[in-house]
Amino acid sequence: MKKIKLGPKPLLYPMPPILVGAIVNGKPNYMTCSWNGLAGYKPPTIVIAMREVRYTMKGIKENGTFSVNIPSSGMYKETDFCGIYSGSKKDKSHIFQTFFGNLDTVPLIEECPLNLECKAVNYLNTGSHILIIGEIIETYINKDCMTDGKADAEKIDPLIYLTATMRYHRLGDFIAKAFSVGREQEDIRDNETILTYVQGRDK
Amino acid sequence: MKKIKLGPKPLLYPMPPILVGAIVNGKPNYMTCSWNGLAGYKPPTIVIAMREVRYTMKGIKENGTFSVNIPSSGMYKETDFCGIYSGSKKDKSHIFQTFFGNLDTVPLIEECPLNLECKAVNYLNTGSHILIIGEIIETYINKDCMTDGKADAEKIDPLIYLTATMRYHRLGDFIAKAFSVGREQEDIRDNETILTYVQGRDK
Repeated sequence: MKKIKLGPKPLLYPMPPILVGAIVNGKPNYMTCSWNGLAGYKPPTIVIAMREVRYTMKGIKENGTFSVNIPSSGMYKETDFCGIYSGSKKDKSHIFQTFFGNLDTVPLIEECPLNLECKAVNYLNTGSHILIIGEIIETYINKDCMTDGKADAEKIDPLIYLTATMRYHRLGDFIAKAFSVGREQEDIRDNETILTYVQGRDK
Repeated sequence: MKKIKLGPKPLLYPMPPILVGAIVNGKPNYMTCSWNGLAGYKPPTIVIAMREVRYTMKGIKENGTFSVNIPSSGMYKETDFCGIYSGSKKDKSHIFQTFFGNLDTVPLIEECPLNLECKAVNYLNTGSHILIIGEIIETYINKDCMTDGKADAEKIDPLIYLTATMRYHRLGDFIAKAFSVGREQEDIRDNETILTYVQGRDK
């Protein structure tokens, strides 16, 4: 396969276009952010990359709290809206039904099937962005998105963001069970490795 | 919609099951890691959550370098293998064809359609995990995964990892253009807001 160099580019696939919620100037505000990932399980943490100038950042820094809301694929229009317009120019408090959990500074989106209520516990400057480390203090999920006591992604039907070409997709077909199908690989590779060694020895 | 509480849980959808490459004890090693995200664009950075005890961490700390390799959906078996077995017990240097770019301490996977060559520029402890901040110094992509000069996710066909139920999926159908479809939402919501205000005034 012929590889080409693109220079240093922030490319990663797939990405979750989460809606980050905060109270800013006394109102719920929601901002779309695809640069994020899980950061630990003890305590459960998430990391979000956000520019310092963002309207949402003001609320997070003031209150030390925020929410992460996972949109389902049908919510592409509202999600994109919250990525295009700043809360400094558009009042985004009416876009969704807001509910609250433990803290009155963490607005959560009723329409999103999965919500994480977070406390900001650390910040790290990466240059253009600030990494916000959030401790997840509670998880809310639509009851009908559970299977056998576990969050079921197929029922959540998450929206997927693809950078560079800037497109939303839905989740596709099931391929295989993780932490399971790799065990088949083991035997194949062990045999191949053995064969390579044997052939090497013969030469 | 009825919501239930799960307690604090690290849940996020979708996630990219990247293969993190490093030279450990003189050999390429690859570890699957789904807890990661982009961290900035100037300079381009990525953040990866990894446990301190990981074999791969040894190589990253020693050399201050690592790679991020995006597997396509057909690579589910090899990807899962690298998530199940530690390099301390299995020699994973033969799983893929390794190539090198600028630095001889950054092994890159030929079979992965997209590769990021990274320098570790910062670390942050979140409790159970260490966040590794990597500056992307070069990007390699299969020539046939480009469309009009841009990385094309549909051609990359990335493997998708879904936590909790622990399943691999492929990318599904295109829904809409990002930074575009949200402009339609604007009009709808503006009208709704206006209607609500008018109705409110009438009452």
